[in-house]
Amino acid sequence: MTVGTTPQGRKIFYRDELKFAFAATDAFVGTVTPGEVFEVETEININAGVLTSLDKRLTESDVTLPFVNPVTGPFKVEGAKPGDMLKVEIIEAAVGGIGTTALWPGVGIFPDWCRQKEFGIRNHNVLVKDGVIHWSDKVKLPVKPMIGCISTAPVNGGMMTVDCDKVGGNLDVQEVTDGNVVMLPVHHDGAYLYLGDCHAIQGDGECNGMGAIEIAAHLTIRVEVVPRPPEMTWPRIETPTHICTIGCARPLEDALRTAFQEMVYWLSADYGLSHEEAYMLLGQVAEARCTQMVNPKYTYICKVHKDVLAQL
Amino acid sequence: MTVGTTPQGRKIFYRDELKFAFAATDAFVGTVTPGEVFEVETEININAGVLTSLDKRLTESDVTLPFVNPVTGPFKVEGAKPGDMLKVEIIEAAVGGIGTTALWPGVGIFPDWCRQKEFGIRNHNVLVKDGVIHWSDKVKLPVKPMIGCISTAPVNGGMMTVDCDKVGGNLDVQEVTDGNVVMLPVHHDGAYLYLGDCHAIQGDGECNGMGAIEIAAHLTIRVEVVPRPPEMTWPRIETPTHICTIGCARPLEDALRTAFQEMVYWLSADYGLSHEEAYMLLGQVAEARCTQMVNPKYTYICKVHKDVLAQL
Amino acid sequence: MTVGTTPQGRKIFYRDELKFAFAATDAFVGTVTPGEVFEVETEININAGVLTSLDKRLTESDVTLPFVNPVTGPFKVEGAKPGDMLKVEIIEAAVGGIGTTALWPGVGIFPDWCRQKEFGIRNHNVLVKDGVIHWSDKVKLPVKPMIGCISTAPVNGGMMTVDCDKVGGNLDVQEVTDGNVVMLPVHHDGAYLYLGDCHAIQGDGECNGMGAIEIAAHLTIRVEVVPRPPEMTWPRIETPTHICTIGCARPLEDALRTAFQEMVYWLSADYGLSHEEAYMLLGQVAEARCTQMVNPKYTYICKVHKDVLAQL
Amino acid sequence: MTVGTTPQGRKIFYRDELKFAFAATDAFVGTVTPGEVFEVETEININAGVLTSLDKRLTESDVTLPFVNPVTGPFKVEGAKPGDMLKVEIIEAAVGGIGTTALWPGVGIFPDWCRQKEFGIRNHNVLVKDGVIHWSDKVKLPVKPMIGCISTAPVNGGMMTVDCDKVGGNLDVQEVTDGNVVMLPVHHDGAYLYLGDCHAIQGDGECNGMGAIEIAAHLTIRVEVVPRPPEMTWPRIETPTHICTIGCARPLEDALRTAFQEMVYWLSADYGLSHEEAYMLLGQVAEARCTQMVNPKYTYICKVHKDVLAQL
Repeated sequence: MTVGTTPQGRKIFYRDELKFAFAATDAFVGTVTPGEVFEVETEININAGVLTSLDKRLTESDVTLPFVNPVTGPFKVEGAKPGDMLKVEIIEAAVGGIGTTALWPGVGIFPDWCRQKEFGIRNHNVLVKDGVIHWSDKVKLPVKPMIGCISTAPVNGGMMTVDCDKVGGNLDVQEVTDGNVVMLPVHHDGAYLYLGDCHAIQGDGECNGMGAIEIAAHLTIRVEVVPRPPEMTWPRIETPTHICTIGCARPLEDALRTAFQEMVYWLSADYGLSHEEAYMLLGQVAEARCTQMVNPKYTYICKVHKDVLAQL
Repeated sequence: MTVGTTPQGRKIFYRDELKFAFAATDAFVGTVTPGEVFEVETEININAGVLTSLDKRLTESDVTLPFVNPVTGPFKVEGAKPGDMLKVEIIEAAVGGIGTTALWPGVGIFPDWCRQKEFGIRNHNVLVKDGVIHWSDKVKLPVKPMIGCISTAPVNGGMMTVDCDKVGGNLDVQEVTDGNVVMLPVHHDGAYLYLGDCHAIQGDGECNGMGAIEIAAHLTIRVEVVPRPPEMTWPRIETPTHICTIGCARPLEDALRTAFQEMVYWLSADYGLSHEEAYMLLGQVAEARCTQMVNPKYTYICKVHKDVLAQL
Repeated sequence: MTVGTTPQGRKIFYRDELKFAFAATDAFVGTVTPGEVFEVETEININAGVLTSLDKRLTESDVTLPFVNPVTGPFKVEGAKPGDMLKVEIIEAAVGGIGTTALWPGVGIFPDWCRQKEFGIRNHNVLVKDGVIHWSDKVKLPVKPMIGCISTAPVNGGMMTVDCDKVGGNLDVQEVTDGNVVMLPVHHDGAYLYLGDCHAIQGDGECNGMGAIEIAAHLTIRVEVVPRPPEMTWPRIETPTHICTIGCARPLEDALRTAFQEMVYWLSADYGLSHEEAYMLLGQVAEARCTQMVNPKYTYICKVHKDVLAQL
Repeated sequence: MTVGTTPQGRKIFYRDELKFAFAATDAFVGTVTPGEVFEVETEININAGVLTSLDKRLTESDVTLPFVNPVTGPFKVEGAKPGDMLKVEIIEAAVGGIGTTALWPGVGIFPDWCRQKEFGIRNHNVLVKDGVIHWSDKVKLPVKPMIGCISTAPVNGGMMTVDCDKVGGNLDVQEVTDGNVVMLPVHHDGAYLYLGDCHAIQGDGECNGMGAIEIAAHLTIRVEVVPRPPEMTWPRIETPTHICTIGCARPLEDALRTAFQEMVYWLSADYGLSHEEAYMLLGQVAEARCTQMVNPKYTYICKVHKDVLAQL
């Protein structure tokens, strides 16, 4: 059984049937209705059950490549159809228990040819409790929870959960967090929403590959379905303070260009600027960064503050 | 005459003798003493005297490539010698008057083969006054002044002022601003400090190439000289809240890697972490972004908050 | 049944049980002995049975992403054990019948953000017969057969057959062809050799993504097992005229660097040059090119002519 | 005096007045007429007069960065006017004497952050005589002469001679050699042709930065002026066997894309293919490689054999 009911009467989807690809050929694990609040359990990105204690040292066999980043889903979104845009509101991403960050050969921002002999497998486990990451006896970091994998099903075929693209996927964007709304394109009836790979905190670039604090999570989510804006090609995010566009590509230049171009389109369509004006204004007001440079495609986010938008 | 005295009795260096390269073959325009507060005028990055009115439209001849980004200097720093590190404190970067941002063929984040027929030369002039950028009748942006070019002289030869590298140069980093300290390596007696190419505001990526609000400026500066930490290779910045490392390279991946590697070295040397620990911790706490992707080398900044450092 | 015997008494492995990942968790489809000549059928890289006629137009459903590049295998190589190097001699790669090249959205050297509205799916089928590719009524190209996918099983986990890495994989190197020997590392008992994704001809870069003439093939192969040279990290190829190293990475700079570094190691270990001398000599004698810039990792090959080696 | 007359009565331009930028603000050193055969002396890319003996060891002061790659010119081409295309026929590039290749910190395919402590300055001098490069007592390489820098003046401003772009410049392409024709755009009356930075031989990638055998040369040249094809944006080359397009950019992906796109345009304009057909055909017939990955912009060449063109 993968679906239950919480004490408040919400649907809850358990992490007992995980997927390693986003694909419309999957059977739905359940149905959600726009406007309904529901809950989702997600598994840690390595094999379930491995991280049994704080002193557990990872070995190669603890991760079954390329089957990493298990996701929960797909959820059928009632009424969503091709051409729609799915708005996924992250009400809460709650994390706790043992999490880990790890060095892994061939993974990370430093290319293999350069670092191949330097680092072997090494992991650093932490206890996450009451909003604090106990990184070491001395170092305590505040929890900044986020959802690494959020996706609808691609137009055709499947995308591995290590990868990301126009439908979302393994975006690893810190803004996919409490209080924000992620917008994804819908290509199939029911949308096929997947969620997983949560982090207790993540640095920009996610430099060491398994770079965030990887951890299981309990999500509270609400979705909405609207027509897809014609100029929308890539995932978008709205936060209380910013609008954000996402681009996924390698090399990193192309990821940045994609996110900026999507923002030019958005500013032009919804805020009355010409492409040229939008492009020039971004030269002054863009807030942008690479959120991860370790997945098959890199992720760039481009943001504009609503203080600027309010004046347009 | 390029040097004068302010009413408060400070030395002031005027923008009447500009340079377009950083080179220890230049004659010093004056001498400053560690600890002394002095002032520097800098010119707008296009040809001086061109931007005569708000409705001035730029043409090719208004910019004499590759002679852009004029800088004031070099200043001899009393006592600075090879092997030292120069600490440049930005007390104030004051900007005002007419500034501009521009589209220019072949310049910007979008490669030429892709955009070549789309945009011609187009500039957008703004009035900067009392801390406000009058972007349009409707849009007003707060001034966030910064110094684009800050450099010592390279080991040998000269570096054009459009370029950047280990000695600094056309970094275009927003953190080179009021209240922060920029650290640069010293390769020659007197250090040869140059300053120029200020911006009233700049977006991340500086996407449209002449992407910031380019403007003349009046700087208030103080320098200090200390021995160079042995593991320091690239420019560093200290702000009230963060330590920051800078990397300049193309492709963008290499710029990011450079900035992160420099931070690994810094955390290891000054905060007692092993390289591996520093690298893993950055996976959670790095704040990093590309500040410009339009100069001959791109600039990446990697930052760590002092709240984290205080626990190490 | 996946294995039979040819009239000459050779083992032949049929294309009736295809794989879409390279993984030591697969069951062997058969065993080959070093020195033995055997034959292998490989399938076209799209779904089998789709290309029924020269005028067949491909649609999205004809390719089940990410399940492309089916491979035949794995073959157990008698006596191969971890630490060995597998030498795969391509005696013949015979191709014939209907092949295809195709434009596919999101695939190819031009990034999606740039070309997204330009090209849809479009395929161009050709008849391959008697060593000639009938590209059009006017254009006839000579067959230059090659094997796109050649791999052993990775250290742990699995690698999708669209991908490539240190064990080989979807290399798409034209030198993997008749008369040449491909060298791959062995990480598991039996080596787990896979072969597939043959091309009737391929241009450098494989620019349009499904850029070669994709086609089924009939291979004649012989393998040998030797101890792995300690400095060997990436696939190598020996041709009658050259030694070649392969590097797979994104961005393209890293692929080139990897191939060149591997060649520096090889020249140093086997030909008595210091690293510095090898690196300097390559500045004059390297023959190198990107063979594909369309797979998840790009492939670069670096070659040195035996006329040079003979003098070392 | 920079111009003389050879015994055969040809104009000869001496290497006694060198330039370090391509700019239409330069005064012409002389005039040539389309169809006329003339000769040009070029200097080695480091400072003139430094390489006095085979055992000369280079030091930092022997190269005055960024003043490398001295070029001879500019030559006024009689009748050339904006909108024309200049065809430069390389009749002969004769090299001889002492040449050198060198390792230089911060130069080469390996990024500085990775190799910074490995190699210092190291040069390897060779005697070039009678078509043979005496690389060492044992290693003798055949001379394959080429012209590294070939350029007209850019639209406006100047381009340093270390750089390359749409007008040519420091292309470092091996195909700029005897018997081939290089085509460059003309932006100014007289075209402003420059030539310099010749190599006795160069490997693909020019990996160690000063990677070719750098040497002075004596060129025999003939120029022609024709209207510029409307779709021509980048330098092109015609050899007895191939047509070639050149792209210069960083990252390397963009250089490759530029060269391929220019070839799509050329095939479409002159050989009757649609853009889609040309792009698909290149997937099978392109011969392409990076000629240097060490200059401020990297160079990619894309070639199509005339055997293919003859069938179109």
